Amino acid sequence: MQTYRYPPKETWKVLTARATSDYSDKLPVVEEVMQGIRIRGDAAVREFTAKFDKANISTLEVSDQELTGAESKIDPQLALAIRTAAGNIRAFHESQKLAVRMVETYPGVKCWQKNLPIESIGLYIPGGSAPLFSTVLMLALPALIAGCKGVILCTPPDPEGNIHPAILFAAKLCKVSKVFRIGGIQAIGAMALGTESVPRVHKIFGPGNSWVTAAKQYVSLNTCSIDMPAGPSELAVVADSSANPAFVASDLLSQAEHGPDSQVILVTTEESILDRVAAEVALQLEMLPRKKIAATSLAHSRLILLKNMEEVMEFINLYAPEHLILQTDDAERLAEKVTNAGSVFIGHWTPESAGDYASGTNHTLPTNGWARSVSGLNLDSFCKKITYQEITREGLEQLGPVIETMAAAELLEAHRNAVTIRLNTKK
Amino acid sequence: MQTYRYPPKETWKVLTARATSDYSDKLPVVEEVMQGIRIRGDAAVREFTAKFDKANISTLEVSDQELTGAESKIDPQLALAIRTAAGNIRAFHESQKLAVRMVETYPGVKCWQKNLPIESIGLYIPGGSAPLFSTVLMLALPALIAGCKGVILCTPPDPEGNIHPAILFAAKLCKVSKVFRIGGIQAIGAMALGTESVPRVHKIFGPGNSWVTAAKQYVSLNTCSIDMPAGPSELAVVADSSANPAFVASDLLSQAEHGPDSQVILVTTEESILDRVAAEVALQLEMLPRKKIAATSLAHSRLILLKNMEEVMEFINLYAPEHLILQTDDAERLAEKVTNAGSVFIGHWTPESAGDYASGTNHTLPTNGWARSVSGLNLDSFCKKITYQEITREGLEQLGPVIETMAAAELLEAHRNAVTIRLNTKK
Repeated sequence: MQTYRYPPKETWKVLTARATSDYSDKLPVVEEVMQGIRIRGDAAVREFTAKFDKANISTLEVSDQELTGAESKIDPQLALAIRTAAGNIRAFHESQKLAVRMVETYPGVKCWQKNLPIESIGLYIPGGSAPLFSTVLMLALPALIAGCKGVILCTPPDPEGNIHPAILFAAKLCKVSKVFRIGGIQAIGAMALGTESVPRVHKIFGPGNSWVTAAKQYVSLNTCSIDMPAGPSELAVVADSSANPAFVASDLLSQAEHGPDSQVILVTTEESILDRVAAEVALQLEMLPRKKIAATSLAHSRLILLKNMEEVMEFINLYAPEHLILQTDDAERLAEKVTNAGSVFIGHWTPESAGDYASGTNHTLPTNGWARSVSGLNLDSFCKKITYQEITREGLEQLGPVIETMAAAELLEAHRNAVTIRLNTKK
Repeated sequence: MQTYRYPPKETWKVLTARATSDYSDKLPVVEEVMQGIRIRGDAAVREFTAKFDKANISTLEVSDQELTGAESKIDPQLALAIRTAAGNIRAFHESQKLAVRMVETYPGVKCWQKNLPIESIGLYIPGGSAPLFSTVLMLALPALIAGCKGVILCTPPDPEGNIHPAILFAAKLCKVSKVFRIGGIQAIGAMALGTESVPRVHKIFGPGNSWVTAAKQYVSLNTCSIDMPAGPSELAVVADSSANPAFVASDLLSQAEHGPDSQVILVTTEESILDRVAAEVALQLEMLPRKKIAATSLAHSRLILLKNMEEVMEFINLYAPEHLILQTDDAERLAEKVTNAGSVFIGHWTPESAGDYASGTNHTLPTNGWARSVSGLNLDSFCKKITYQEITREGLEQLGPVIETMAAAELLEAHRNAVTIRLNTKK
């Protein structure tokens, strides 16, 4: 870990920088896969699955039987934990429902907006060593609560064509309509373009490797909305003298184990915390199965000592972390000062892993500084807002001249005339 | 205008299709401009302004004096109209403020989300024959209400370096921080990257030609958020026997005059409406200064006759128009059936131009079918949502085992350990 004591402000830009991400070198392959799916549909999806995932799949869609049978294949304690987490995630996202507020902006002029579900949704769950069933909950539950009708899920099969039962169980629990054993670029292509088996969707959600990210970027330009820009996961911890170094170390490590490119930053006002956290990190690291990954990530992590909490929060807001843990006794007060972050964890007893799994907040959050302008997933991400206006004849008589004046000044006579012709109509 | 009587459903996909938009041929020029600005800042901006806009600009920023003096250069009636429209837009966007709702998802586990303003915002207002001051209101007022601190605006100068006073007046009225005489790709580049004069922003809003759109797409991949994908403006009108053909024609024309690529569709259940609207369009078209543009757009417009209102609404929702006018006596009931649209205009006395200027709704809306998954601009577009969670020691004791079970099943031991280490701490 690299330690910076009282770094001057002109170095903060570098200290808060991320590695740049550019997926343009992946575009030729992405285009080839998209073109294949556009022309040959399912057949192309099967070919690319054999090529990239080394799996020969006859039936792309997972059967009802497999979905229903999944629960019997997982530990009952895990099933119970998933149900509990689902309850919390559901409660928090239910609370995000928007009431319709009608406003009479001018006499006889009523305006309102309504949140409507995006009709068809595609979820992507990456494969790999561990089954990311928690991400199924984070994507599928808000879609269910929003009222999205067609929610499909793609996830890569293992070489035998199987999908982990915990993923299938979570999908079934969240009422996903269809699950497909498709991964990578071909999954994004199938959902964005549609094939004989896979319905075309209007928005794609979910994490993935750089190929999946490149494919999502590609379809987002012309074909299909996506959830948010992707990047390596990040954590910033703010600690003062009240912080428990063992807790801080455990949080830094929980982020570091995600991947070798994970970003971990500790910002503190307390000199003594630096060494004590470093010692705890070394101790806890030894016991981790993903020690090697965590160590690689930690090598480029940063411990930063600043003068006071004002500076600390200025630094944090400049960095705009995906996850921010406030391990101080006045964490609630500090939380009020956050202007840029994905999700904030307040106090010594709120580890990031609580939000990753079960507190109820969404774990799909903006990385790479996007927290300055992008929200984490929430109920709104699965809806679009439509505006409505209704004007009475009397209302148009009042407001009409305003519209006529403005339209004429913008040289849009037909716009003006749409009002004039109405106002000139005899009662 | 092309008329389709009772088109079979298998043709609807073609009838609701738009011309595809692909800006990839513009990328080499966009990259050249971006690279220039990245390296040479203001100097590059000036060079590209001279090259593309034929204007030699010494001072990029518009002075306070010019901003303050703008009102005296416009018709007082126009200034009053702009103020009235601004009042309505403000009232509607104020109503979109989100209250913080804290939820206890589990005993001792509190979650909430807060809408925070995006700190720095860039607005783009295109140049051309008419001064689009209405777009200044639509972009800058929600930014002001959201509490965005740094709101800058770029708009191309005329060859003498001037900007229309109505644009400056609107910018001043909406408390825009800085206005720059910069247009095109170089405006998007300057705002996304920052220069000596132009502050770097976190999100860019506003319409533009295909070069501006290509530049916005380019920066959206790695550098800076953008408002939404752009495309030619669109209107669908639904009419029944109660519709006034002159009103319908005036609305179709108000959309058609936007540009030769504007999309105009009339969907009706009433055979007699078709000819009467066509006749009214011919009559009104003759009197329009932008007759040629409107006529080009109308050439590819569509009049569609369907069996009943169920079919009409099904067609409309498949099309997902930017603007939808419901000119029927039961317009309120039909409005309930809309699932995909940008903004809905209810009843005979609610022309699209009301929403374009002064009803209070935003006129920046999703085109090209994006209304299926993207909202029009609203207060949320200028904010990001941050989530918060706060767990008590007792709360973690309750929820901890759920997190531990899930983390272990995802093979993330450090995630589990962040809970275990806390639960094992002596009281």
